[in-house]
Amino acid sequence: MITYNFDHVEGSLYEYIYKCVKNDIISGKISAGEKLPSKRNFAKNNGVSTITIQNAYDQLAGEGYIIAIPKKGYYAANIEGISKVNVAQQVSLNIQLPKEEPEYIFDFSSNRTEADNFPFSIWSKLLREVISVREKMLLEVSPAAGVFELRQAIANHLNSFRGMNVDPNQIVVGAGTDYLYGLLVKLLGKDRTYCIESPGYRKLQMIYDDEKVVNRYARMDEKGIRIDELRRVGAEIAHISPTHHFPTGITMPISRRYEVLAWANESAKRYIIEDDYDSEFRLNGKPIPALQSIDASGKVIYMNTFSKSLAPTIRISYMVLPEKLANKFYRQLAFYSCTVSTFEQYTLAAFISKGYFEKHINRMRLHYGRKRAQILGVIRSVFREEECKVLENDSGLHFLLQMNTKKSDHEIRDLMIQHRIKITPITDYDMSDNYEDRHQFILNYSSMDVEGLEQALMVLKSVI
Amino acid sequence: MITYNFDHVEGSLYEYIYKCVKNDIISGKISAGEKLPSKRNFAKNNGVSTITIQNAYDQLAGEGYIIAIPKKGYYAANIEGISKVNVAQQVSLNIQLPKEEPEYIFDFSSNRTEADNFPFSIWSKLLREVISVREKMLLEVSPAAGVFELRQAIANHLNSFRGMNVDPNQIVVGAGTDYLYGLLVKLLGKDRTYCIESPGYRKLQMIYDDEKVVNRYARMDEKGIRIDELRRVGAEIAHISPTHHFPTGITMPISRRYEVLAWANESAKRYIIEDDYDSEFRLNGKPIPALQSIDASGKVIYMNTFSKSLAPTIRISYMVLPEKLANKFYRQLAFYSCTVSTFEQYTLAAFISKGYFEKHINRMRLHYGRKRAQILGVIRSVFREEECKVLENDSGLHFLLQMNTKKSDHEIRDLMIQHRIKITPITDYDMSDNYEDRHQFILNYSSMDVEGLEQALMVLKSVI
Repeated sequence: MITYNFDHVEGSLYEYIYKCVKNDIISGKISAGEKLPSKRNFAKNNGVSTITIQNAYDQLAGEGYIIAIPKKGYYAANIEGISKVNVAQQVSLNIQLPKEEPEYIFDFSSNRTEADNFPFSIWSKLLREVISVREKMLLEVSPAAGVFELRQAIANHLNSFRGMNVDPNQIVVGAGTDYLYGLLVKLLGKDRTYCIESPGYRKLQMIYDDEKVVNRYARMDEKGIRIDELRRVGAEIAHISPTHHFPTGITMPISRRYEVLAWANESAKRYIIEDDYDSEFRLNGKPIPALQSIDASGKVIYMNTFSKSLAPTIRISYMVLPEKLANKFYRQLAFYSCTVSTFEQYTLAAFISKGYFEKHINRMRLHYGRKRAQILGVIRSVFREEECKVLENDSGLHFLLQMNTKKSDHEIRDLMIQHRIKITPITDYDMSDNYEDRHQFILNYSSMDVEGLEQALMVLKSVI
Repeated sequence: MITYNFDHVEGSLYEYIYKCVKNDIISGKISAGEKLPSKRNFAKNNGVSTITIQNAYDQLAGEGYIIAIPKKGYYAANIEGISKVNVAQQVSLNIQLPKEEPEYIFDFSSNRTEADNFPFSIWSKLLREVISVREKMLLEVSPAAGVFELRQAIANHLNSFRGMNVDPNQIVVGAGTDYLYGLLVKLLGKDRTYCIESPGYRKLQMIYDDEKVVNRYARMDEKGIRIDELRRVGAEIAHISPTHHFPTGITMPISRRYEVLAWANESAKRYIIEDDYDSEFRLNGKPIPALQSIDASGKVIYMNTFSKSLAPTIRISYMVLPEKLANKFYRQLAFYSCTVSTFEQYTLAAFISKGYFEKHINRMRLHYGRKRAQILGVIRSVFREEECKVLENDSGLHFLLQMNTKKSDHEIRDLMIQHRIKITPITDYDMSDNYEDRHQFILNYSSMDVEGLEQALMVLKSVI
């Protein structure tokens, strides 16, 4: 009969017994196949309760050290080869994190948002309301496309703000546009030829590369993506941002919009992804009609995000699918769980439907309008028009500085880095290896420190 | 000179003028290339301010109806082909949503969580604290793997709760396990042979199918996945849940764990995905050591989720990558944005590090332990042991009813549906088309209505 010494028990009794038996099995003191005492006998013999032994046996059986045979009792298992490597050594890890950006004293191109502008108190209030009112609903699993209430709120917003007629069931909500691009590749197919704009948003190229789909780039002219370029590269899916192209700032005129739609209509395989990422920040006049709203044949997938208009760390983006693709989504992809927590979905739904989102956008437009004017003033105080021209079209949160210089774009960029100032030429966004310098540099003012700007521009002046 | 009638202006003046000019261009009254009046003249002639005309012209230029030529003025653009389809008709959409499940009066297999058990008030309090204390940090973009504070909290939790030694930089946080499986396929490669358990979790098969990777299934025995089966199907990535297999409830004993590790070590290409989804709910004794913690050669990817332990609608899951894969993640995938909002990341970090998570788990364990006992009592009051045996191993939130019946699994399931009761045989989770009935049915008690159980069991009794 097994007897243990209980003089130095640390922790619970059952755990101690579990360890003793385990050690005896590992060391071979109790050999494979050996019958263990019944719980009652074991308990009696050691002066502990049957429950304690039961717990220890349960643990041992759960880990495979002993085997319970109904109506027969407990037997030591065959654990050959376990004894020596019972717990692995802690490996000392050597993980290479991505390099952090050097610290700049000024950054012309940062697209951060200012924390002061996020309506924290309202968001926090709505969250509290949502939590207190919605308890049950919050724990219901969200439909794959997002909770209906949020999709309804987005549809209403798109209608009043963008003149779009959208069925909430066309809308798919997801945790960020990166995630939605991945879903779209699943929906459209890996065998299509995707095409982005050049210059354009580098991350798109990385995402399509990572998705292992054929992806090309089409060059732009002053109206946006060129149709002859789409044809040249055999594009099937054109990923464009007609409202406010990054980095050039071009707004695609209505005539080119119809040309792109006409191109898409030439083949059943063709679609347009309309990335409308900062349409809310058109500063003068009404925003230009979305491609989606003049598309009569279901060729446009409209995408937008609240990361830009609200806060970069609210990971809620959405896409509006044409009927055919919406049906495909429900047939093929609706088994995926929605990636946004219901807490945030309901909070955002309330934020939109109670009018806070519109108010926020209006406030931000005013704020950005004033900031823009301030910044243009500073630029004019440092540079004459011949030295530095501002290229802009009243839209979005960045514009371009057209510098009059003999130095190359990269020379200027590198010289500025020596002064710990970051400035990015738009040629950095050119997808081809073979391009000419344009002497155009990005100025993103969404979080720009106006105080530091004059100093930074003086350095730029000295450098060019 | 253009003159408009301002008697019936609705909305702003500039908008009205914008519309008038646009209509004239569309109708051809103003023809392509025609010069428009200067802003000053236009304003004077119509008795409005120059700013109003400026705004109208800006809008027209933005939309491409007119072209501004510096130092020359504004000209009507060539908009051939636009006039007739200026705004698309609203298409009437026919979107087929997935069929809703019929309404059951009782469901033996629902894996919902009870809303009452979610610590709403604490969560809400922490969220408020996070929002008030962290303003700035909340708007910083999260690193791709998640905010460090949360990863640190998870590493500490894994250490104290699971005895795992984990570097926070091995941890990648994402919006749900579905999303992380997708990331993993990117990390491990599309050219590998993935293998899941049979019977097993159907959704995994759907996800791997959707990712277009080769995926096989390996049959299990009473210890879990069979090594000969892994070999038979040429598995390279084995996706298993050794702690508590769904649906069989099997806990893999330590001997089989080492066999699986040995299998993985035979080839550099092999990895094990350890899905530890409900390890927190082991009801007796300590949880069994994770495969990850006895893996000395970097072969195990550990995955877990807070959807199960906290609430299904908190979309936060994580994986612990072995060093080599962590480095690959940082090299290849760190450009993706993290899919979880920083609000929820910081709130969860506080929830864990302030001890609330442990408290919650302990409370839930007690709660589930009591519920389980109640349910076992009800079963015993309806069925004798010979009619219905309960198969369980003190772990997780479900167990199996082994029914003594001559009817087939599907007959019983279908007869129960006629009584509007849902019961699922584990053969429904068999991946092969060729299997034998087991007469084992899933009973998931996490949200079970104990009141209704007796009635439902009586029906089951009449049916078998």
